[in-house]
Amino acid sequence: MTDGISLEELQLAARNHGMPLEALRWDITPVGLHYLLTHYDIPSVDPRTWRLEVDGLVGRPLSLSLDQIRVRPAVELAVTMECAGNGRARVEPHVVSQPWLLEAVGTARWRGALLAPLLEEAGVRGDALEVLFIGLDRGVEGGEEQDYARSLPLSDVLEGEALLAYEVNGVPLPPQHGFPLRLVVPGWYGMTSVKWLARVTLTDEPFDGYQMRHSYRLRQEEDEAGVPLSRIQTRALMVPPGIPEFLTRLRIVPAGECVLEGRAWSGQAEISGVEVSTDGGETWGEAALEPDALGRWAWRSWRFVWEAAPGEYELCCRARDVADNTQPLEPPWNVGGYANNAVQRVAVTVAA
Amino acid sequence: MTDGISLEELQLAARNHGMPLEALRWDITPVGLHYLLTHYDIPSVDPRTWRLEVDGLVGRPLSLSLDQIRVRPAVELAVTMECAGNGRARVEPHVVSQPWLLEAVGTARWRGALLAPLLEEAGVRGDALEVLFIGLDRGVEGGEEQDYARSLPLSDVLEGEALLAYEVNGVPLPPQHGFPLRLVVPGWYGMTSVKWLARVTLTDEPFDGYQMRHSYRLRQEEDEAGVPLSRIQTRALMVPPGIPEFLTRLRIVPAGECVLEGRAWSGQAEISGVEVSTDGGETWGEAALEPDALGRWAWRSWRFVWEAAPGEYELCCRARDVADNTQPLEPPWNVGGYANNAVQRVAVTVAA
Repeated sequence: MTDGISLEELQLAARNHGMPLEALRWDITPVGLHYLLTHYDIPSVDPRTWRLEVDGLVGRPLSLSLDQIRVRPAVELAVTMECAGNGRARVEPHVVSQPWLLEAVGTARWRGALLAPLLEEAGVRGDALEVLFIGLDRGVEGGEEQDYARSLPLSDVLEGEALLAYEVNGVPLPPQHGFPLRLVVPGWYGMTSVKWLARVTLTDEPFDGYQMRHSYRLRQEEDEAGVPLSRIQTRALMVPPGIPEFLTRLRIVPAGECVLEGRAWSGQAEISGVEVSTDGGETWGEAALEPDALGRWAWRSWRFVWEAAPGEYELCCRARDVADNTQPLEPPWNVGGYANNAVQRVAVTVAA
Repeated sequence: MTDGISLEELQLAARNHGMPLEALRWDITPVGLHYLLTHYDIPSVDPRTWRLEVDGLVGRPLSLSLDQIRVRPAVELAVTMECAGNGRARVEPHVVSQPWLLEAVGTARWRGALLAPLLEEAGVRGDALEVLFIGLDRGVEGGEEQDYARSLPLSDVLEGEALLAYEVNGVPLPPQHGFPLRLVVPGWYGMTSVKWLARVTLTDEPFDGYQMRHSYRLRQEEDEAGVPLSRIQTRALMVPPGIPEFLTRLRIVPAGECVLEGRAWSGQAEISGVEVSTDGGETWGEAALEPDALGRWAWRSWRFVWEAAPGEYELCCRARDVADNTQPLEPPWNVGGYANNAVQRVAVTVAA
């Protein structure tokens, strides 16, 4: 395990917010506790002059004010969003970027207008294949000055529930979540859900920008093309039980019945079960899944009753989905340190 | 400069949120961007059963529901709060704890009931000297299991504007800021403003708990008593100009007029001026202070017009207050790595 995070990585860790894992208690993550990853700076956008441009291979280009988007039929979706880099700080050899441990996740109620009908209104041409989303956050990465931009195949936009969101948890988007408007693509890693959205452009070829060509690809070698990241890997996390030690975050739990609880999610397929181990992954028991209260795109609650006897333990949990995806015991490695969904390990002392 | 932050420190950096410095643009820090330091876990508190107990050396002990506090005369104060550990990651030799760089600050509008009239109602006895504040967050620190607890001299409570706050920026406190009720002590470092407040106890001797006796003291040696931290040191920070490089956060600025802007604050005395250097602290020019729009306890805006010619620069800013406090060029060292208000240094490339 590396023990040398650089000051450059620390600068990123100090700006980009994780969700403290005790916040898994809430069905919907309170504003301010949802994870937050900003490549460049959080822009300050004047909503009076802001417009969303819809252009490219469309019959009727649109230029929409926020009010014009807010009067469209509104949809609210509970969506669990996770950063593709979650778990990066645990992969070896060490990968230098935002050093997430486990906490780059959150679930919010996003309210806005569905993207598909808006594209229909713009009249997507028959030769359009991709949808490019351009944000207002600008910076330099890999030596290229750029607006943050990502694309999706048109088919994924038309078949999915991609949302142009202007509210989160019942309030207007705060600046850090993309005010005045952001894309939310349920089931996909967070890089897809472009914040501070300014432009949606229909094209007839895959977008080749930095965030598509270089970042967010699974590669074993620097010089291979690799596979683009898309849907969120299957994962369960638990609320660390008991109370923490300040620095080490080791947990102290009283002896007796201890209810372990947490959440599980997958962008791949519906969650079918969660297992819990109290011996570091040697043996596993089945947790009880709670009813699916939040819909397909949000995490699912689970609980497991543990009879805690005095001693030292390593608690683990792992989810599986109906497509038989599950979680590895050890972190997978790739060039970007992405999609590390290795099982969580929580060190616990049960007091005598 | 250390380049080895441990995974234990990273765990803290991932939980505890900094304010990205571009958020200095906003007079009032949006909810979710204010800094956040939680020693143990964020508790989940049921406001229906929660009570604030006021006891100890009082004539009439009180047990108040949230509604009983909300019906009292309300006060709203804009307060700049800073963590006493802000700047710790830059001190040498390295101090192991929450590794803040510069971003452990924020300004919020806190609304609630003043504490002094409530103590009057409880009938503080003549032999009371201190007020002890106990939170609901519990953990282990320095080998001691404890509720987070801090005390203040009674005279500071009666003369100051210590507030029992139930709202921040016009909304009920979110869980992470102390729901349902927290203490806010304007001008003091954040450790004083106990969150998830459960009990206020009047005593006739200084409280000797871990957070008073061990933490939050300025000490040059481990075994000396040292001086307790209290009011916030004088400091200015600037919005990093231009656009960032993703990993290094180096700034790229176009040539020409560049308006540098930021905020300055001090818990010691009113801000009297801010200076800016564009050559790493060799020479300094006076910034313009904006009118004091937020009151005595919040930061003050400043701006400085820089004619940026192509080249490499290190921008700095430093504040001074009417009591002649200012900021050192190099980080001061103490055992806890506290109160490092050394001037901010921002590396900038002005493009040709």
